[in-house]
Amino acid sequence: MWDLLVTNVHLATMVGGYGEVRDGAIAVRDGRIAWLGKAADADPAQAAQVHDGGSCWLTPGLIDCHSHIVHAGNRSDEFEARLNGATYEDIARAGGGIMSTVRATRLASDEELLAQSLPRVRSLLAEGVTTLEIKSGYGLSLESEAKMLRVARRIGRELPVNVATTFLGAHALPPEFAGRADDYVTEVCNMIAPLADQGLVDAVDAFCERIGFSRAQTEKVFQAAASHGLPVKLHAEQLSDQQGAQLVAQFGGLSADHLEHLTQDGIDAMARAGTVAVLLPGAYYFLRDTTPPPVAALRAAGVPMAVATDNNPGTSPMASLLLALNMVCTLWRLTPLEALAGATVHAAAALGRQADIGTLEVGKRADFALWNIARPADLSYAFGFNPCKGVVFGGKLED
Amino acid sequence: MWDLLVTNVHLATMVGGYGEVRDGAIAVRDGRIAWLGKAADADPAQAAQVHDGGSCWLTPGLIDCHSHIVHAGNRSDEFEARLNGATYEDIARAGGGIMSTVRATRLASDEELLAQSLPRVRSLLAEGVTTLEIKSGYGLSLESEAKMLRVARRIGRELPVNVATTFLGAHALPPEFAGRADDYVTEVCNMIAPLADQGLVDAVDAFCERIGFSRAQTEKVFQAAASHGLPVKLHAEQLSDQQGAQLVAQFGGLSADHLEHLTQDGIDAMARAGTVAVLLPGAYYFLRDTTPPPVAALRAAGVPMAVATDNNPGTSPMASLLLALNMVCTLWRLTPLEALAGATVHAAAALGRQADIGTLEVGKRADFALWNIARPADLSYAFGFNPCKGVVFGGKLED
Ligand SMILES: [Zn+2]
Ligand SMILES: [Zn+2]
Repeated sequence: MWDLLVTNVHLATMVGGYGEVRDGAIAVRDGRIAWLGKAADADPAQAAQVHDGGSCWLTPGLIDCHSHIVHAGNRSDEFEARLNGATYEDIARAGGGIMSTVRATRLASDEELLAQSLPRVRSLLAEGVTTLEIKSGYGLSLESEAKMLRVARRIGRELPVNVATTFLGAHALPPEFAGRADDYVTEVCNMIAPLADQGLVDAVDAFCERIGFSRAQTEKVFQAAASHGLPVKLHAEQLSDQQGAQLVAQFGGLSADHLEHLTQDGIDAMARAGTVAVLLPGAYYFLRDTTPPPVAALRAAGVPMAVATDNNPGTSPMASLLLALNMVCTLWRLTPLEALAGATVHAAAALGRQADIGTLEVGKRADFALWNIARPADLSYAFGFNPCKGVVFGGKLED
Repeated sequence: MWDLLVTNVHLATMVGGYGEVRDGAIAVRDGRIAWLGKAADADPAQAAQVHDGGSCWLTPGLIDCHSHIVHAGNRSDEFEARLNGATYEDIARAGGGIMSTVRATRLASDEELLAQSLPRVRSLLAEGVTTLEIKSGYGLSLESEAKMLRVARRIGRELPVNVATTFLGAHALPPEFAGRADDYVTEVCNMIAPLADQGLVDAVDAFCERIGFSRAQTEKVFQAAASHGLPVKLHAEQLSDQQGAQLVAQFGGLSADHLEHLTQDGIDAMARAGTVAVLLPGAYYFLRDTTPPPVAALRAAGVPMAVATDNNPGTSPMASLLLALNMVCTLWRLTPLEALAGATVHAAAALGRQADIGTLEVGKRADFALWNIARPADLSYAFGFNPCKGVVFGGKLED
């Protein structure tokens, strides 16, 4: 007996390409995929509930594997000031930049932080996202980093979405550690144990960049993560080559993210380690960057490419994963298949959850998105348009 | 007595800049704005219905003044083929390009055309759009152009949106006129009277380009429009300078649209004629164009700039006017104020409706959008995010 049978759908299983099953059906038991195949081969009488998919396409629920979506305040004032001629220095003098987000996030209560983050999360969920990675990194103290991660966990309890939390204490140097970056890195390493003890950390991340933390400092953070058995990922080679990809690969990391300045040596290291390349076109677009990540070389090396929103108030105030799919195709010439794989099967791998989500296979979580589209390529072709017609989360039809 | 009072809102009247009225209210009688000012100065007892805006911002309903949103089929198959290496020639040989949309649109019934267009229109309306221009131009015969315009009018009857129709017979050369472009232009001129007699034409447009129609052919269409008392607008200088802006200005035209290759001479002609520059960043983005329209020179000359989606299946499958606002800021450095004015007051002028819509002023239509935002700049800052909390259309609260 099945709990739910979704029938009259075209499946894109995302196994071996789109893995299309036209005129298909998919059955759920105990929140897991119990069967899938041709609709004609499914017996509706075997299911407690039958849902007619109305000839929609059905894909794995989308996965946004890189976000800073929990934060307080926004930076539209800076956006407007810059377009009216203010320089970065003007804005920094006026207390702007990332520290304005840190101040707002530190000041916000759990409730306020949740309330401000929910509309952005709902925007993603309306587009078929069923798994969302959320980073800390605007607290930069044990208490406020814990607050961000608690709110992230709460989002996973209150909305139909699997939340993966990432501790990003090494995101920026807080003002109280000005001139003492190494001391702050020690502090970050010391935060890992208490946060992990509270069950708040699924992975550890850092911002390895000239304007962030050095390779040596990043390595310290990774060693602390490893000593607690936590997987690592990295903001790597966004603005310059820091050989962060090699470092994260050396730690067997889940992903290296951004990668506009990644070298062939970094690509080779990632390929050997099985580290996923997470592409973040929103920041590239919003910052008017002109150096694309080395997509062709990543493809040639067989490095899996994921695609994410990087939702954050400074460099990517984007709350649409479908728009990110269009951007990687339009701006970086990924194919629509690569784009969709980047928000499903490879995004799952970037979170270390490939055994559980990211494809339609018997035994995996029953997280699906239903789409009113002619073919899967529509998901990256149209932009500023949401064809999502419903979601199944853990076997439960959400609509 | 007022029919409706919306109170507890911040108004952006868009008169003289944002025209901010903090802690404001706005009153409606007979579908028109009857009063606006400080909420403290409004007597709720004077209103049959009072709506608490919950501290939202309230702007004029947005206006998308350039769209090809009525069409059948899509071109995601070509999008995918191109990204998999197919050339434009391959696609043309396979029957692709604009003629595939013409074929699908000709074959569709009124009902089918409406059904396929409605989801795109609804996407715009969900973002606070209350006025939408819709062009013909995928029929290219009297009967099928009439069908497109009938469907456009029907959208205006069935949904809460003012529809402005534009006859774009001179969009492309239909296959049955191959090698006989002048004959087709004569045919287009002859279509104007019967379409206008059916009340289907608010303005006349053409595609003046090396791959479209010549300046001389465009002039013939404009003369026919003028002889029927119809205003003109033009797809001008998108791919090359055809001096189309000067031509449309010479006819006292409403707008010249695209304008990537506009010259100073064209700008001066538009400034003298009061012709609006309609900026279409969706096509620029999707086609990976690298020549921006001369925004600084347009600004210096005092040419009003509007912003629109250009929704169409070939070069701008975008169904979000808010995304277009972000794009003109991000890609072309308009300010958030210019972007919002481009989707309100100047978009109204591009449709010749500036007396009726586009600002919050007593006597104008009561078309409003309510936004859950901190400040008006949020509308162009965030992307892939819709903060619209409700719409008032012709004085009626839609939510
Ligand atoms: Zn990031
Ligand atoms: Zn157009």
